[in-house]
Amino acid sequence: MINIPRGTQDILPEETKKWRYIESKLNELMELYNYQEIRTPIFESTELFARGVGGSTDVVQKEMYTFKDKGDRSITLRPEGTAAVVRSYIENKMQGLPNQPIKLYYTGPMFRYERKQKGRYRQFTQFGVEAIGAENPGIDAEVLAMAMHIYQSFGLKHLKLVINSIGDMHSRKEYNDALVKHFEPVIGDFCSDCQNRLHSNPMRILDCKVDKDKEAIKTAPQISDYLNEASKAYFDEVKQHLDDLGIPYVVDPNLVRGLDYYTHTAFELMMDNPNYDGAITTLCGGGRYNGLLELLDGPNQTGIGFALSIERLLLALNEEEIELDIDNEFDLFVVTMGDAADRYAIKLLNDLRKNGIKADKDYMSRKVKGQMKQADRLNANYTVVIGDQELENKNINIKNMQSGETEMIQLDGIVDYLKNKE
Amino acid sequence: MINIPRGTQDILPEETKKWRYIESKLNELMELYNYQEIRTPIFESTELFARGVGGSTDVVQKEMYTFKDKGDRSITLRPEGTAAVVRSYIENKMQGLPNQPIKLYYTGPMFRYERKQKGRYRQFTQFGVEAIGAENPGIDAEVLAMAMHIYQSFGLKHLKLVINSIGDMHSRKEYNDALVKHFEPVIGDFCSDCQNRLHSNPMRILDCKVDKDKEAIKTAPQISDYLNEASKAYFDEVKQHLDDLGIPYVVDPNLVRGLDYYTHTAFELMMDNPNYDGAITTLCGGGRYNGLLELLDGPNQTGIGFALSIERLLLALNEEEIELDIDNEFDLFVVTMGDAADRYAIKLLNDLRKNGIKADKDYMSRKVKGQMKQADRLNANYTVVIGDQELENKNINIKNMQSGETEMIQLDGIVDYLKNKE
Repeated sequence: MINIPRGTQDILPEETKKWRYIESKLNELMELYNYQEIRTPIFESTELFARGVGGSTDVVQKEMYTFKDKGDRSITLRPEGTAAVVRSYIENKMQGLPNQPIKLYYTGPMFRYERKQKGRYRQFTQFGVEAIGAENPGIDAEVLAMAMHIYQSFGLKHLKLVINSIGDMHSRKEYNDALVKHFEPVIGDFCSDCQNRLHSNPMRILDCKVDKDKEAIKTAPQISDYLNEASKAYFDEVKQHLDDLGIPYVVDPNLVRGLDYYTHTAFELMMDNPNYDGAITTLCGGGRYNGLLELLDGPNQTGIGFALSIERLLLALNEEEIELDIDNEFDLFVVTMGDAADRYAIKLLNDLRKNGIKADKDYMSRKVKGQMKQADRLNANYTVVIGDQELENKNINIKNMQSGETEMIQLDGIVDYLKNKE
Repeated sequence: MINIPRGTQDILPEETKKWRYIESKLNELMELYNYQEIRTPIFESTELFARGVGGSTDVVQKEMYTFKDKGDRSITLRPEGTAAVVRSYIENKMQGLPNQPIKLYYTGPMFRYERKQKGRYRQFTQFGVEAIGAENPGIDAEVLAMAMHIYQSFGLKHLKLVINSIGDMHSRKEYNDALVKHFEPVIGDFCSDCQNRLHSNPMRILDCKVDKDKEAIKTAPQISDYLNEASKAYFDEVKQHLDDLGIPYVVDPNLVRGLDYYTHTAFELMMDNPNYDGAITTLCGGGRYNGLLELLDGPNQTGIGFALSIERLLLALNEEEIELDIDNEFDLFVVTMGDAADRYAIKLLNDLRKNGIKADKDYMSRKVKGQMKQADRLNANYTVVIGDQELENKNINIKNMQSGETEMIQLDGIVDYLKNKE
């Protein structure tokens, strides 16, 4: 037997209903905020991610599905969404559109070759937004409020917003220099990843999982002491807006994003409930990336965005025991007795469905009792039983399965009867 | 600059609205017919397609995106949907579920490395259905009627249904033998693909694009002369149902599907309009595959399905100049003058959006005139202009952009005013 690839999952009918509910809710929310959907290909040139995600990251170094296509081009299944959206923005010259800033969102599968663990798949689904073309604390606040609104709109209550500022390019340069100076004397005690990062990416030493309890990490300089006046003012304004909106937040000076193109606002949204399984604590992360477009040979434009995993959102809903409001209504199951009735029912079903009525019949040659069971399983609101007698008399009993009541109607009046009940 | 991979496309905001419309319509239609969505991974074991699509097909021989993952497994980006759905059916033992037949549908990207041509992409999007577990002419008729209903529901009028029967396993065996006998003496004149097919897959000689005008193809035996009684009866019943449903069709004896597991009903839905560009004539194809499940080491169950390309559906809508009924409503654009108003507006937007009202403001430091232009571009139903005076007086003029009328309301009454207008 051929199995599903390791680390991937089939989403089966009961689950797909939840997915469609979530996706359609996300689409609705995006309309409220005037963000528009973009769909980029499943794979991109490998170079896009090497540059746009960062050659020093685990994602690029260890986790990408990279291969050669038949034209000998190196392509990679996308490990995240931002680089491709920015590639599309540049390629389609969106900076020239009148409708600025460009506010985009996407939903779709992403791929990372990771070790299997709870809530993590090698193919997972990200939803993300990118607002490109405005450097304005107001848009940072909008993006943060939107992330919060998304989770709240599904009924999640235990949420914690953690923010920080990495400052502008000047501030982060000064801070990076201070970090190198701080870690250089002791770097021999750190893991080999951190030793490699010291000059390329010193900020990432701060969130190394191996070295997190080292004394030098606890005593490291903090970005907040290196923010210049402009960066402080920008961050203050973002925080002011959050206060205005009544959105609680915590500033975590260790929340830094290691890549060169991140600036100013960085944030994470976490589940804030001591009962949660630690593996799914972070729901969503994002920040401002003022250097990314230029890094990808694009125009000098700035952006901010975030991404979330729909698989983790589903886990969070599960943890808080939230039931989504999914419509499971089914209108009519047509029970048949005999060949003539069966043939009639196929025609009837076609009429019903053409009129927007959810209807089905048996195709398994079940007896009447078995067909009634099938009607129950489908949770049908109504049933009819058609046999030779009904075909002859042109009358039929239609049964309301909730109330148990039946009503005698004309055989050719079933469609109208059900249309009037809607 | 890094470009999009050759043969793929970005779907940009104006287009994604059409895609969401189509997908949501397809979801609604599937509910009417009691089909449920399944989502399988983007890639599968290469072996699944080699066996389930067929090693002798162009798809498997020339067009697959096949590569090794980091665990040295050969995986392939799915070139079509049926094999994966059947793999999932088998792996999840769906034959044991009470709710039979299993009626499934899927939508998602598929991948074939093909030469670029109009309406063809290397990543394209298929929607498809599979009804597994019932061998019953009624379900064949349902699937055919559903394919027709889908296109009609988008307003397409020029449709032609072409059907054929390949008969059961016995009939097709006899027919294949007759074809081998017929082509063997002349096969030297045929292309090398056909020479290879003679014994492995003689039916595929009939739809060879290279040899289609050869005399021996015109004089070849026809499957209709080789259908045994049971196969004829099955096909007659399918045709009877189509007649009952008033669905016109043409029987094309050359419509054969070359793979071993296809049986009985085969069909294609074509655009039937002399003005169409030939490249997009076939909209949708499908048929019954009674041998596929066993070929994939599954239970002895039979299935029928079809698949269509959403890109081609969009081309067909374009050809028939059909406008989809897409909602482009936007509620309120908030124009601001000065920093205090700007800060107030961010709070106001948050309230509006939390109340389901589509609202936006300027983030580009535009002057009032530029902000009004942005409101026009968004097609906003209402605008307000907030300045220091409005903040002080706590009153504001709200302007209906259709009628041009303004109304003076309380500043903190904007949300309620718009909620009552919905």
